[in-house]
Amino acid sequence: MELFNYFRSSASYRVRIALALKGLDYDYKSVHLARNEHLGESYSAVASSRLVPLLRDGDAVVTQSMAIIEYLDETHPEPPLLPSDALGRARVRALAQDIACEIHPLNNLRVLRYLVKDMGLSEDQKTRWYKHWVETGLEAVEQRLLREGASGRFCHGDTPGLADCVLVPQIFNAQRFECRLDHVPAVMKVFETCMALDAFSKTQPSACPDAE
Amino acid sequence: MELFNYFRSSASYRVRIALALKGLDYDYKSVHLARNEHLGESYSAVASSRLVPLLRDGDAVVTQSMAIIEYLDETHPEPPLLPSDALGRARVRALAQDIACEIHPLNNLRVLRYLVKDMGLSEDQKTRWYKHWVETGLEAVEQRLLREGASGRFCHGDTPGLADCVLVPQIFNAQRFECRLDHVPAVMKVFETCMALDAFSKTQPSACPDAE
Repeated sequence: MELFNYFRSSASYRVRIALALKGLDYDYKSVHLARNEHLGESYSAVASSRLVPLLRDGDAVVTQSMAIIEYLDETHPEPPLLPSDALGRARVRALAQDIACEIHPLNNLRVLRYLVKDMGLSEDQKTRWYKHWVETGLEAVEQRLLREGASGRFCHGDTPGLADCVLVPQIFNAQRFECRLDHVPAVMKVFETCMALDAFSKTQPSACPDAE
Repeated sequence: MELFNYFRSSASYRVRIALALKGLDYDYKSVHLARNEHLGESYSAVASSRLVPLLRDGDAVVTQSMAIIEYLDETHPEPPLLPSDALGRARVRALAQDIACEIHPLNNLRVLRYLVKDMGLSEDQKTRWYKHWVETGLEAVEQRLLREGASGRFCHGDTPGLADCVLVPQIFNAQRFECRLDHVPAVMKVFETCMALDAFSKTQPSACPDAE
Protein backbone atom coordinates (compact mmCIF):
# COMPACT_ATOMS: atom_id res chain seq x y z
CA MET A 1 0.00 0.00 0.00
CA GLU A 2 1.02 3.59 -0.63
CA LEU A 3 -0.20 6.53 1.42
CA PHE A 4 0.01 9.91 -0.28
CA ASN A 5 0.11 12.36 2.57
CA TYR A 6 1.77 15.33 4.22
CA PHE A 7 3.33 15.42 7.64
CA ARG A 8 1.34 18.41 8.82
CA SER A 9 -2.03 17.44 7.30
CA SER A 10 -4.19 16.28 10.16
CA ALA A 11 -6.42 14.22 7.84
CA SER A 12 -3.24 12.39 6.78
CA TYR A 13 -2.25 11.81 10.39
CA ARG A 14 -5.63 10.17 11.05
CA VAL A 15 -4.84 7.50 8.46
CA ARG A 16 -1.27 7.01 9.65
CA ILE A 17 -2.65 6.22 13.11
CA ALA A 18 -5.16 3.72 11.71
CA LEU A 19 -2.49 1.96 9.66
CA ALA A 20 -0.26 1.78 12.72
CA LEU A 21 -3.06 0.48 14.97
CA LYS A 22 -3.58 -2.31 12.47
CA GLY A 23 0.15 -2.97 12.12
CA LEU A 24 0.05 -2.41 8.34
CA ASP A 25 3.15 -1.48 6.36
CA TYR A 26 2.96 1.15 3.62
CA ASP A 27 5.09 3.38 1.46
CA TYR A 28 5.03 6.96 2.68
CA LYS A 29 4.53 9.25 -0.32
CA SER A 30 4.98 12.88 0.59
CA VAL A 31 2.80 15.51 -1.10
CA HIS A 32 4.04 18.86 0.15
CA LEU A 33 0.95 21.03 0.54
CA ALA A 34 2.80 24.19 1.57
CA ARG A 35 4.81 23.92 -1.68
CA ASN A 36 1.59 23.28 -3.65
CA GLU A 37 2.67 19.83 -4.78
CA HIS A 38 -0.98 18.74 -4.52
CA LEU A 39 -1.85 21.15 -7.33
CA GLY A 40 0.82 19.76 -9.69
CA GLU A 41 -0.10 17.64 -12.68
CA SER A 42 1.44 14.44 -11.39
CA TYR A 43 -0.68 14.43 -8.24
CA SER A 44 -3.92 15.67 -9.77
CA ALA A 45 -3.67 12.78 -12.25
CA VAL A 46 -4.01 10.50 -9.21
CA ALA A 47 -6.35 12.61 -7.08
CA SER A 48 -9.04 14.63 -8.83
CA SER A 49 -9.89 16.38 -5.57
CA ARG A 50 -6.20 17.35 -5.15
CA LEU A 51 -6.50 16.58 -1.46
CA VAL A 52 -4.45 14.36 0.79
CA PRO A 53 -4.55 11.72 2.12
CA LEU A 54 -4.99 9.15 -0.62
CA LEU A 55 -4.44 5.41 -0.22
CA ARG A 56 -3.39 3.22 -3.14
CA ASP A 57 -3.96 -0.46 -2.40
CA GLY A 58 -3.04 -2.42 -5.53
CA ASP A 59 -5.39 -1.07 -8.22
CA ALA A 60 -7.71 0.46 -5.64
CA VAL A 61 -7.53 4.18 -4.90
CA VAL A 62 -9.33 5.47 -1.82
CA THR A 63 -9.66 9.08 -0.71
CA GLN A 64 -11.12 10.93 2.27
CA SER A 65 -9.54 9.97 5.57
CA MET A 66 -12.64 8.54 7.28
CA ALA A 67 -13.52 6.51 4.18
CA ILE A 68 -9.94 5.21 4.05
CA ILE A 69 -10.07 4.17 7.70
CA GLU A 70 -13.38 2.34 7.25
CA TYR A 71 -11.93 0.66 4.13
CA LEU A 72 -8.92 -0.49 6.14
CA ASP A 73 -11.23 -1.70 8.89
CA GLU A 74 -13.25 -3.75 6.41
CA THR A 75 -10.27 -5.19 4.53
CA HIS A 76 -8.10 -5.77 7.63
CA PRO A 77 -10.62 -6.33 10.43
CA GLU A 78 -8.17 -6.87 13.32
CA PRO A 79 -7.98 -5.00 15.60
CA PRO A 80 -11.36 -3.39 14.85
CA LEU A 81 -11.54 0.42 14.79
CA LEU A 82 -15.32 0.47 14.98
CA PRO A 83 -17.55 -1.23 17.58
CA SER A 84 -19.49 -4.36 16.70
CA ASP A 85 -22.96 -2.89 17.36
CA ALA A 86 -24.81 -0.48 15.05
CA LEU A 87 -25.42 2.11 17.77
CA GLY A 88 -21.79 2.02 18.85
CA ARG A 89 -20.64 2.42 15.27
CA ALA A 90 -23.02 5.35 14.85
CA ARG A 91 -21.63 6.99 17.97
CA VAL A 92 -18.01 6.57 16.88
CA ARG A 93 -18.76 7.86 13.38
CA ALA A 94 -20.67 10.82 14.79
CA LEU A 95 -17.82 11.71 17.16
CA ALA A 96 -15.36 11.49 14.27
CA GLN A 97 -17.66 13.69 12.17
CA ASP A 98 -18.08 16.18 15.02
CA ILE A 99 -14.42 16.92 14.35
CA ALA A 100 -14.03 16.08 10.67
CA CYS A 101 -17.17 17.96 9.56
CA GLU A 102 -17.54 20.72 12.17
CA ILE A 103 -14.00 21.75 13.15
CA HIS A 104 -11.31 20.67 10.74
CA PRO A 105 -12.81 21.86 7.40
CA LEU A 106 -12.90 25.42 8.70
CA ASN A 107 -9.25 25.42 9.64
CA ASN A 108 -7.32 23.63 6.96
CA LEU A 109 -4.56 25.30 5.01
CA ARG A 110 -6.50 26.18 1.87
CA VAL A 111 -9.32 27.75 3.86
CA LEU A 112 -6.96 29.84 5.99
CA ARG A 113 -5.14 30.94 2.84
CA TYR A 114 -8.41 31.95 1.19
CA LEU A 115 -9.52 33.93 4.23
CA VAL A 116 -6.32 35.97 4.20
CA LYS A 117 -5.59 36.26 0.49
CA ASP A 118 -9.08 36.52 -0.97
CA MET A 119 -11.22 37.77 1.91
CA GLY A 120 -8.61 40.18 3.23
CA LEU A 121 -8.61 38.97 6.83
CA SER A 122 -5.68 40.02 9.00
CA GLU A 123 -3.43 37.45 10.66
CA ASP A 124 -5.10 38.33 13.97
CA GLN A 125 -8.54 37.70 12.55
CA LYS A 126 -7.39 34.42 11.05
CA THR A 127 -6.12 33.28 14.43
CA ARG A 128 -9.37 34.32 16.10
CA TRP A 129 -11.33 32.38 13.45
CA TYR A 130 -9.15 29.33 13.99
CA LYS A 131 -9.47 29.35 17.74
CA HIS A 132 -13.21 29.96 17.66
CA TRP A 133 -14.02 26.79 15.72
CA VAL A 134 -11.52 24.62 17.56
CA GLU A 135 -12.53 25.77 21.01
CA THR A 136 -16.30 25.63 20.48
CA GLY A 137 -16.07 22.41 18.47
CA LEU A 138 -14.01 20.61 21.08
CA GLU A 139 -16.43 21.76 23.76
CA ALA A 140 -19.18 19.83 21.98
CA VAL A 141 -16.95 16.75 21.91
CA GLU A 142 -16.19 17.25 25.62
CA GLN A 143 -19.91 17.29 26.41
CA ARG A 144 -20.43 14.04 24.55
CA LEU A 145 -17.53 12.35 26.31
CA LEU A 146 -18.88 13.46 29.68
CA ARG A 147 -22.55 12.72 29.07
CA GLU A 148 -22.45 9.49 27.15
CA GLY A 149 -21.93 6.26 29.06
CA ALA A 150 -20.02 4.60 26.22
CA SER A 151 -16.99 6.87 26.77
CA GLY A 152 -14.08 5.09 28.38
CA ARG A 153 -10.31 5.46 28.46
CA PHE A 154 -10.68 6.21 24.75
CA CYS A 155 -13.50 8.06 22.96
CA HIS A 156 -15.54 4.85 22.90
CA GLY A 157 -14.76 2.22 25.50
CA ASP A 158 -11.26 1.11 26.40
CA THR A 159 -9.73 0.45 22.98
CA PRO A 160 -8.65 3.01 20.40
CA GLY A 161 -10.78 3.48 17.29
CA LEU A 162 -11.88 5.73 14.47
CA ALA A 163 -12.91 8.62 16.74
CA ASP A 164 -9.51 8.63 18.45
CA CYS A 165 -7.78 8.62 15.04
CA VAL A 166 -9.63 11.85 14.27
CA LEU A 167 -9.42 13.47 17.71
CA VAL A 168 -5.66 13.28 18.27
CA PRO A 169 -4.59 15.16 15.09
CA GLN A 170 -7.11 17.88 15.92
CA ILE A 171 -5.46 18.38 19.31
CA PHE A 172 -2.07 18.67 17.62
CA ASN A 173 -3.49 21.47 15.46
CA ALA A 174 -5.08 23.12 18.48
CA GLN A 175 -1.78 23.10 20.34
CA ARG A 176 0.12 24.46 17.35
CA PHE A 177 -2.25 27.44 17.16
CA GLU A 178 -2.23 27.83 20.95
CA CYS A 179 -5.95 27.24 21.34
CA ARG A 180 -7.46 27.05 24.78
CA LEU A 181 -7.74 23.45 25.96
CA ASP A 182 -8.29 23.74 29.70
CA HIS A 183 -12.06 23.69 29.16
CA VAL A 184 -11.95 20.17 27.72
CA PRO A 185 -10.30 17.96 30.37
CA ALA A 186 -12.06 14.75 29.28
CA VAL A 187 -10.87 15.30 25.71
CA MET A 188 -7.32 15.89 26.92
CA LYS A 189 -7.40 12.77 29.07
CA VAL A 190 -8.28 10.68 26.02
CA PHE A 191 -5.56 12.49 24.07
CA GLU A 192 -2.94 11.61 26.67
CA THR A 193 -4.07 7.99 26.80
CA CYS A 194 -3.70 7.82 23.01
CA MET A 195 -0.29 9.49 22.97
CA ALA A 196 1.06 6.82 25.30
CA LEU A 197 0.63 4.36 22.42
CA ASP A 198 3.22 4.01 19.64
CA ALA A 199 0.49 4.02 16.97
CA PHE A 200 -0.27 7.64 17.88
CA SER A 201 3.12 8.94 18.97
CA LYS A 202 5.34 7.40 16.28
CA THR A 203 3.11 8.66 13.46
CA GLN A 204 2.88 12.25 14.71
CA PRO A 205 3.83 15.06 12.34
CA SER A 206 7.32 15.63 13.74
CA ALA A 207 8.15 11.91 13.30
CA CYS A 208 7.29 11.86 9.57
CA PRO A 209 9.93 11.50 6.83
CA ASP A 210 8.91 14.86 5.31
CA ALA A 211 8.80 16.74 8.64
CA GLU A 212 10.54 20.09 8.72
CA MET B 1 -38.47 7.27 15.19
CA GLU B 2 -38.21 11.02 15.59
CA LEU B 3 -36.08 13.23 13.35
CA PHE B 4 -35.11 16.60 14.82
CA ASN B 5 -34.40 18.74 11.80
CA TYR B 6 -34.96 21.99 9.95
CA PHE B 7 -36.46 22.36 6.51
CA ARG B 8 -33.57 24.42 5.15
CA SER B 9 -30.72 22.45 6.77
CA SER B 10 -29.13 20.44 4.03
CA ALA B 11 -27.71 17.92 6.50
CA SER B 12 -31.30 17.35 7.65
CA TYR B 13 -32.48 16.91 4.07
CA ARG B 14 -29.86 14.16 3.57
CA VAL B 15 -31.49 12.11 6.33
CA ARG B 16 -35.03 12.79 5.12
CA ILE B 17 -34.03 11.34 1.74
CA ALA B 18 -32.50 8.24 3.33
CA LEU B 19 -35.59 7.63 5.47
CA ALA B 20 -37.78 8.02 2.38
CA LEU B 21 -35.63 5.69 0.26
CA LYS B 22 -36.05 3.06 2.96
CA GLY B 23 -39.75 3.75 3.32
CA LEU B 24 -39.44 4.48 7.04
CA ASP B 25 -42.02 6.55 8.92
CA TYR B 26 -40.91 9.12 11.47
CA ASP B 27 -42.12 12.09 13.46
CA TYR B 28 -40.87 15.35 12.00
CA LYS B 29 -39.58 17.52 14.85
CA SER B 30 -38.77 21.02 13.70
CA VAL B 31 -35.81 22.85 15.24
CA HIS B 32 -35.84 26.33 13.75
CA LEU B 33 -32.19 27.29 13.26
CA ALA B 34 -32.86 30.81 12.01
CA ARG B 35 -34.82 31.46 15.23
CA ASN B 36 -31.99 29.89 17.27
CA GLU B 37 -34.17 27.10 18.61
CA HIS B 38 -31.11 24.81 18.48
CA LEU B 39 -29.44 26.95 21.14
CA GLY B 40 -32.37 26.73 23.54
CA GLU B 41 -32.22 24.64 26.68
CA SER B 42 -34.78 22.07 25.58
CA TYR B 43 -32.82 21.11 22.45
CA SER B 44 -29.36 21.27 23.94
CA ALA B 45 -30.54 18.82 26.62
CA VAL B 46 -31.05 16.36 23.76
CA ALA B 47 -28.14 17.39 21.50
CA SER B 48 -24.91 18.48 23.15
CA SER B 49 -23.54 19.62 19.80
CA ARG B 50 -26.68 21.75 19.27
CA LEU B 51 -26.73 20.70 15.64
CA VAL B 52 -29.42 19.17 13.50
CA PRO B 53 -30.24 16.57 12.35
CA LEU B 54 -30.68 14.20 15.27
CA LEU B 55 -32.47 10.85 15.11
CA ARG B 56 -34.17 9.36 18.15
CA ASP B 57 -34.89 5.65 17.68
CA GLY B 58 -36.38 4.33 20.91
CA ASP B 59 -33.69 4.97 23.52
CA ALA B 60 -30.99 5.45 20.89
CA VAL B 61 -29.92 8.95 19.89
CA VAL B 62 -27.82 9.34 16.76
CA THR B 63 -26.31 12.56 15.40
CA GLN B 64 -24.34 13.60 12.32
CA SER B 65 -26.21 13.02 9.07
CA MET B 66 -23.79 10.51 7.52
CA ALA B 67 -23.61 8.51 10.75
CA ILE B 68 -27.42 8.52 10.93
CA ILE B 69 -27.71 7.26 7.35
CA GLU B 70 -25.21 4.45 7.97
CA TYR B 71 -27.10 3.57 11.17
CA LEU B 72 -30.35 3.38 9.22
CA ASP B 73 -28.62 1.26 6.57
CA GLU B 74 -27.40 -1.18 9.20
CA THR B 75 -30.65 -1.39 11.14
CA HIS B 76 -32.92 -1.39 8.06
CA PRO B 77 -30.79 -2.96 5.31
CA GLU B 78 -33.32 -2.86 2.46
CA PRO B 79 -32.87 -1.18 0.07
CA PRO B 80 -29.13 -0.76 0.74
CA LEU B 81 -27.68 2.76 0.55
CA LEU B 82 -24.09 1.50 0.39
CA PRO B 83 -22.61 -1.02 -2.07
CA SER B 84 -21.85 -4.56 -0.95
CA ASP B 85 -18.09 -4.41 -1.67
CA ALA B 86 -15.49 -2.62 0.49
CA LEU B 87 -14.08 -0.58 -2.38
CA GLY B 88 -17.53 0.52 -3.50
CA ARG B 89 -18.43 1.50 0.03
CA ALA B 90 -15.19 3.47 0.28
CA ARG B 91 -15.98 5.29 -2.95
CA VAL B 92 -19.51 6.19 -1.87
CA ARG B 93 -18.33 7.37 1.55
CA ALA B 94 -15.55 9.42 -0.04
CA LEU B 95 -17.95 11.06 -2.49
CA ALA B 96 -20.30 11.89 0.38
CA GLN B 97 -17.38 13.30 2.37
CA ASP B 98 -16.16 15.32 -0.63
CA ILE B 99 -19.35 17.29 -0.08
CA ALA B 100 -19.96 16.87 3.65
CA CYS B 101 -16.35 17.65 4.67
CA GLU B 102 -15.11 19.94 1.89
CA ILE B 103 -18.08 22.04 0.81
CA HIS B 104 -20.95 22.11 3.25
CA PRO B 105 -19.08 22.92 6.51
CA LEU B 106 -17.79 26.15 4.98
CA ASN B 107 -21.23 27.33 4.01
CA ASN B 108 -23.62 26.49 6.78
CA LEU B 109 -25.63 29.11 8.59
CA ARG B 110 -23.47 29.48 11.69
CA VAL B 111 -20.30 29.87 9.61
CA LEU B 112 -21.85 32.50 7.34
CA ARG B 113 -23.13 34.35 10.40
CA TYR B 114 -19.70 34.29 12.01
CA LEU B 115 -18.02 35.58 8.84
CA VAL B 116 -20.33 38.58 8.71
CA LYS B 117 -20.88 39.35 12.39
CA ASP B 118 -17.49 38.50 13.86
CA MET B 119 -15.08 38.75 10.93
CA GLY B 120 -16.72 41.81 9.42
CA LEU B 121 -17.19 40.45 5.91
CA SER B 122 -19.61 42.27 3.65
CA GLU B 123 -22.63 40.52 2.14
CA ASP B 124 -20.79 40.57 -1.20
CA GLN B 125 -17.74 38.89 0.30
CA LYS B 126 -19.93 36.32 2.01
CA THR B 127 -21.55 35.46 -1.32
CA ARG B 128 -18.16 35.20 -3.01
CA TRP B 129 -16.95 32.90 -0.23
CA TYR B 130 -20.06 30.74 -0.59
CA LYS B 131 -19.79 30.41 -4.34
CA HIS B 132 -16.07 29.70 -4.25
CA TRP B 133 -16.36 26.59 -2.08
CA VAL B 134 -19.48 25.27 -3.81
CA GLU B 135 -18.17 25.79 -7.33
CA THR B 136 -14.67 24.40 -6.75
CA GLY B 137 -15.95 21.61 -4.52
CA LEU B 138 -18.54 20.44 -7.04
CA GLU B 139 -15.91 20.52 -9.75
CA ALA B 140 -13.95 17.89 -7.82
CA VAL B 141 -17.11 15.77 -7.57
CA GLU B 142 -17.69 16.24 -11.32
CA GLN B 143 -14.19 14.96 -12.08
CA ARG B 144 -14.78 11.88 -9.99
CA LEU B 145 -18.11 11.14 -11.66
CA LEU B 146 -16.50 11.51 -15.09
CA ARG B 147 -13.30 9.59 -14.40
CA GLU B 148 -14.46 6.73 -12.26
CA GLY B 149 -16.08 3.76 -13.93
CA ALA B 150 -18.40 3.05 -11.02
CA SER B 151 -20.46 6.17 -11.77
CA GLY B 152 -23.84 5.38 -13.30
CA ARG B 153 -27.26 6.99 -13.43
CA PHE B 154 -26.62 7.83 -9.78
CA CYS B 155 -23.32 8.71 -8.09
CA HIS B 156 -22.49 5.03 -7.80
CA GLY B 157 -24.16 2.66 -10.22
CA ASP B 158 -27.83 2.74 -11.07
CA THR B 159 -29.44 2.86 -7.64
CA PRO B 160 -29.56 5.81 -5.25
CA GLY B 161 -27.38 5.72 -2.15
CA LEU B 162 -25.53 7.66 0.51
CA ALA B 163 -23.61 9.86 -1.93
CA ASP B 164 -26.83 10.91 -3.67
CA CYS B 165 -28.42 11.70 -0.28
CA VAL B 166 -25.57 14.17 0.28
CA LEU B 167 -25.26 15.54 -3.25
CA VAL B 168 -28.85 16.60 -3.84
CA PRO B 169 -29.19 18.93 -0.81
CA GLN B 170 -25.89 20.57 -1.79
CA ILE B 171 -27.30 21.37 -5.22
CA PHE B 172 -30.39 22.91 -3.60
CA ASN B 173 -28.07 25.20 -1.61
CA ALA B 174 -26.05 26.01 -4.70
CA GLN B 175 -29.17 26.99 -6.61
CA ARG B 176 -30.46 29.09 -3.73
CA PHE B 177 -27.24 31.10 -3.71
CA GLU B 178 -27.14 31.24 -7.52
CA CYS B 179 -23.86 29.39 -7.84
CA ARG B 180 -22.53 28.47 -11.24
CA LEU B 181 -23.53 24.92 -12.16
CA ASP B 182 -22.94 24.75 -15.92
CA HIS B 183 -19.41 23.46 -15.32
CA VAL B 184 -20.71 20.28 -13.65
CA PRO B 185 -23.04 18.60 -16.17
CA ALA B 186 -22.45 15.08 -14.84
CA VAL B 187 -23.35 16.23 -11.33
CA MET B 188 -26.50 17.91 -12.62
CA LYS B 189 -27.53 14.83 -14.56
CA VAL B 190 -27.36 12.76 -11.37
CA PHE B 191 -29.28 15.52 -9.57
CA GLU B 192 -32.07 15.40 -12.14
CA THR B 193 -32.25 11.61 -12.02
CA CYS B 194 -32.61 11.83 -8.24
CA MET B 195 -35.25 14.56 -8.34
CA ALA B 196 -37.45 12.37 -10.50
CA LEU B 197 -37.85 10.10 -7.45
CA ASP B 198 -40.38 10.84 -4.71
CA ALA B 199 -37.76 10.09 -2.02
CA PHE B 200 -35.83 13.17 -3.13
CA SER B 201 -38.59 15.47 -4.36
CA LYS B 202 -41.16 14.95 -1.61
CA THR B 203 -38.63 15.57 1.16
CA GLN B 204 -37.20 18.78 -0.32
CA PRO B 205 -37.10 21.90 1.84
CA SER B 206 -40.21 23.53 0.36
CA ALA B 207 -42.24 20.35 1.05
CA CYS B 208 -41.43 20.25 4.78
CA PRO B 209 -43.98 20.99 7.51
CA ASP B 210 -41.86 23.90 8.81
CA ALA B 211 -41.16 25.41 5.37
CA GLU B 212 -41.66 29.13 5.07
